[in-house]
Amino acid sequence: MFVIITYDVERKRVGKVCKKLREYLDWSQNSVFEGEITKGKLTQCLAELNNIIDNNVDSIYLYQVSNPKNLKKTVYGIAKSPMDWFL
Amino acid sequence: MFVIITYDVERKRVGKVCKKLREYLDWSQNSVFEGEITKGKLTQCLAELNNIIDNNVDSIYLYQVSNPKNLKKTVYGIAKSPMDWFL
Repeated sequence: MFVIITYDVERKRVGKVCKKLREYLDWSQNSVFEGEITKGKLTQCLAELNNIIDNNVDSIYLYQVSNPKNLKKTVYGIAKSPMDWFL
Repeated sequence: MFVIITYDVERKRVGKVCKKLREYLDWSQNSVFEGEITKGKLTQCLAELNNIIDNNVDSIYLYQVSNPKNLKKTVYGIAKSPMDWFL
């Protein structure tokens, strides 16, 4: 399946969340990851994220599309690269 | 159709982009809007956004799902509210 994960977490946990998501998905934009993933890997990823975030203040949104053909992505402006984060 | 729009734009344009997107979609999370929209309204929204952003440095990603039934959204942690932005 194809997933988009967006997150809005406290600053002190952004690095950890980002690092964890990089193990499973592609960095797409600030606070946005996407990519194809199996159900098992997604469950594993979410369990590990759950150990990182504070469920009372942090927010992770998971959008799942079973068939990637049903999702169309268009980029306006530039396609950000992970390196933009460090410049 | 159902759309998710994520944006990564220079700070000085965030307010304008956010304000414009609010006219068409629901604020979902920092830099993320979502909702049902007609093709015509989406075209109009994108044209107006194009007048706001700098295509050389800003980035807007549009994810379109023709049938909302093909998209499943799950929230982990808390569902952010637009008011969180001002607290």
